[in-house]
Amino acid sequence: MRRLERAVEVLDSLDLECGIVFKPEHIYYLTGYYPTTRAALVLNERPHLLVSKMDARLAEKTGMEYRAVDKVYEELPLDSKIIGVEKKYVSLEFYEKYLKGKKVQDLRFIEEMRRNKDREEIRLIRKAAEITEDVLREVPGDMAGKKEREVAAEAEYMIRKRAELAFNAIVAAGENSAVPHHTPGNRRIKKEDPVIIDLGARVEHYNADLTRTHVSGDGDELYEATREAQRAAIKECFAGNKIRNADQAARNVLMEYGYEDLFIHSTGHGVGLEVHEYPRLTKDSEGEFEEGMVVTVEPGIYGEYGIRIEDLVLVKKRPVLLSRGQS
Amino acid sequence: MRRLERAVEVLDSLDLECGIVFKPEHIYYLTGYYPTTRAALVLNERPHLLVSKMDARLAEKTGMEYRAVDKVYEELPLDSKIIGVEKKYVSLEFYEKYLKGKKVQDLRFIEEMRRNKDREEIRLIRKAAEITEDVLREVPGDMAGKKEREVAAEAEYMIRKRAELAFNAIVAAGENSAVPHHTPGNRRIKKEDPVIIDLGARVEHYNADLTRTHVSGDGDELYEATREAQRAAIKECFAGNKIRNADQAARNVLMEYGYEDLFIHSTGHGVGLEVHEYPRLTKDSEGEFEEGMVVTVEPGIYGEYGIRIEDLVLVKKRPVLLSRGQS
Repeated sequence: MRRLERAVEVLDSLDLECGIVFKPEHIYYLTGYYPTTRAALVLNERPHLLVSKMDARLAEKTGMEYRAVDKVYEELPLDSKIIGVEKKYVSLEFYEKYLKGKKVQDLRFIEEMRRNKDREEIRLIRKAAEITEDVLREVPGDMAGKKEREVAAEAEYMIRKRAELAFNAIVAAGENSAVPHHTPGNRRIKKEDPVIIDLGARVEHYNADLTRTHVSGDGDELYEATREAQRAAIKECFAGNKIRNADQAARNVLMEYGYEDLFIHSTGHGVGLEVHEYPRLTKDSEGEFEEGMVVTVEPGIYGEYGIRIEDLVLVKKRPVLLSRGQS
Repeated sequence: MRRLERAVEVLDSLDLECGIVFKPEHIYYLTGYYPTTRAALVLNERPHLLVSKMDARLAEKTGMEYRAVDKVYEELPLDSKIIGVEKKYVSLEFYEKYLKGKKVQDLRFIEEMRRNKDREEIRLIRKAAEITEDVLREVPGDMAGKKEREVAAEAEYMIRKRAELAFNAIVAAGENSAVPHHTPGNRRIKKEDPVIIDLGARVEHYNADLTRTHVSGDGDELYEATREAQRAAIKECFAGNKIRNADQAARNVLMEYGYEDLFIHSTGHGVGLEVHEYPRLTKDSEGEFEEGMVVTVEPGIYGEYGIRIEDLVLVKKRPVLLSRGQS
């Protein structure tokens, strides 16, 4: 519960009488209760949860004060003149219905707290990465002849026996690999197809996100370029360095190969309670790497077919790989 | 593309020069392109898609005008004085950054269009329901001795071989069944445990959502009460009837049994491109059932253990079951 106390302290320091937290990841981060339906964490002089009756037994486990009600939104304490909410999460409709005319402040500090993972969080992400990597090593053995959909189903099943899924598996063969977020379909995988597999386990709400690309034969130039770009970017993921340097390092390598225009997404993103969270590794990222951030590094090239290699990096004085990487 | 034309007509009739659609389900509904990352459908005198470069090949398939850009939000045509957006979907942060000072109108008509499913949509939901029900019939055979998590993984795998998943399976045994949205864990299922399985397949983006409860032996009173409540509610799902009548019918049955206080959620919800969409079947629902709506009917009782039975109903002059129901 120390995070909750810290949150209340920050609120005080902002002279905010009342903050209301809606985002499930944030409620979980601060209380240990992960809402399964609409819920709110009220941060005021007496922090408490407002939950649906459906979630009463889950809220009970936190040991903190809670009220189980029929309609969470109708019970919100909105009488303060200034209310703190998560502006990224609250909808314009909610604002017009419940907050109009009030001064509304952004509770972005919760997101900021979450950037720097503690030991336990890192342990869970590492475990999620291990499970994911185990499956990524096992799957490719017998893909030929199967449908993308079947390979995805099997990979997900292997994860689900041990953990939750962070997201639907991407299995993209041949020309489909040129679509970064391809949805696995009925295309049968041929022996010579390049195949991208993008997979993630979730352990106690903490996610992993890894990608491997299988190309037939050695010396695929796109593959080598991607791997080199990834190595260059990983080297930049150390505390105090500019985040954009990681993106730029990957781009520089691909520029040398003449592939820069085929790298059509960012170099990576933070991972934690969300699969995609702060920071984004792009060329105009403003911030610096901080100790305890966990980020993906995942350059890719998308031409007639696609290549992407994605690993998880823990930011410390030096970058620490949380996945062992593709050999 | 007829839906897109209809949308533009509605916009004209609202005297809206420009509407911008962000919600992936809505973009898909109007164009056939399902965004895998941030995207926008611009509805103005020249409707077009603004997509990430990652999605260029997907947008291409629609045959409509599109632009693949680095940053979708920076390319939005926001020069009209009145802009239509989905107020439920757009965040307060987005509003403050891009829309403040403008007149903003709600594009709720897209949600309204989606309420009444056409033949093809019903075909897909029916197919999703069939796959789900096949799996629900197969799973219970050998649950005893397994962990909840394992049963969930197997059920999901059986679905994934044939379709997508609508949501993570709920498998809740014994006392866990008293938590409506229980997350399957390591509890081993005993022969005499009541077990709730809540499962859904997704076929071409259309969802199913069904629940079966297995109780040992016959004549479980909670089970009989739930089944009777469900039957009573289903009867009310016909075009022209008040939506709240379906909820009230279920509640009336459970009141006779003395279980009303243990029914801690609504009686159902619309299903389509979203697992939960309009209408909600609650006691204060305002609207009427309309032809082509597809709703779940899922009363439940949650005491020391839980019972829930959920089927899918297509609203016509009479209610039409899209699932065959639990025997």
